[in-house]
Amino acid sequence: MADTTYVKANNLVDSARAKGLRLTTAESCTGGLVAAALTDIAGASDVFDRGFVTYSNAAKCDMLGVADAMLKAHGAVSAEVARAMALGAIDHSLADVAVAVTGVAGPGGGSPEKPVGLVHFACARRDGAVNHVERRYGPQSRAEIRAASVTQALDMMIDAVDAAQRRP
Amino acid sequence: MADTTYVKANNLVDSARAKGLRLTTAESCTGGLVAAALTDIAGASDVFDRGFVTYSNAAKCDMLGVADAMLKAHGAVSAEVARAMALGAIDHSLADVAVAVTGVAGPGGGSPEKPVGLVHFACARRDGAVNHVERRYGPQSRAEIRAASVTQALDMMIDAVDAAQRRP
Repeated sequence: MADTTYVKANNLVDSARAKGLRLTTAESCTGGLVAAALTDIAGASDVFDRGFVTYSNAAKCDMLGVADAMLKAHGAVSAEVARAMALGAIDHSLADVAVAVTGVAGPGGGSPEKPVGLVHFACARRDGAVNHVERRYGPQSRAEIRAASVTQALDMMIDAVDAAQRRP
Repeated sequence: MADTTYVKANNLVDSARAKGLRLTTAESCTGGLVAAALTDIAGASDVFDRGFVTYSNAAKCDMLGVADAMLKAHGAVSAEVARAMALGAIDHSLADVAVAVTGVAGPGGGSPEKPVGLVHFACARRDGAVNHVERRYGPQSRAEIRAASVTQALDMMIDAVDAAQRRP
């Protein structure tokens, strides 16, 4: 893990612990990297109890309850599916904050409409609020797109935890 | 990812694809690193559709069907639980081969009986056969123990795929 990733993940774990909040992850193109960044921190178990690596459409349906009709209508790499993944991760865990990542990491799989480097992120809270971000990282390598996506996902969770109330 | 991890993961994806076999992961102490290693390979979606990051005991029960009584009797870091995680991952996916990893990555959480560096691995096939390995990595860093565990998990899946029949 890059040092900045470690620092961000460490800050996130500390902030969530201080507020008594729990985190979860729903990952497609990052394929476990966000969960790995969180669990790189000793004591992550205080705030992280599970993560979903939903690489296929079937996994998004089975593990997170994403509707098959939504996947057909919008495609897996879409704002709608990112939001549904994040809300589904909340529903299928005890977490207070969930981040979802779905994108085209390449080098194959791109299209004019959804090029390599397009990644949709959503960060959901247990009260149902969802924040969505679309990033277009352009023609970088698969590893670079995945690493940039981890940073974005951590940043969104940090913001969500900062804005959240301490758990009563 | 270290180069050797990339090479092993690449070989594993190629071998599984050639035999029409699918893979899944059930990770505790590696926390998503094995899934991340597989999805680092372009085209991993041909053989990998989901992974389970079951960091807590509750996650092992909810996501993989590990019995609470087994966790209480043997502890999460045990051969029994590693086997149950691997078989549960087969049951909760469409995969032909599943690897499970549960251990004490440290620096805290060790005991005389289960010291830091103790990791149990299990690799299950859809026919119910399970291979178990116990490793004691000794007093290395958390990152070193996790990285060594990824290598061991990939090696066990490589052996399982090599020994398996091509899917009819």
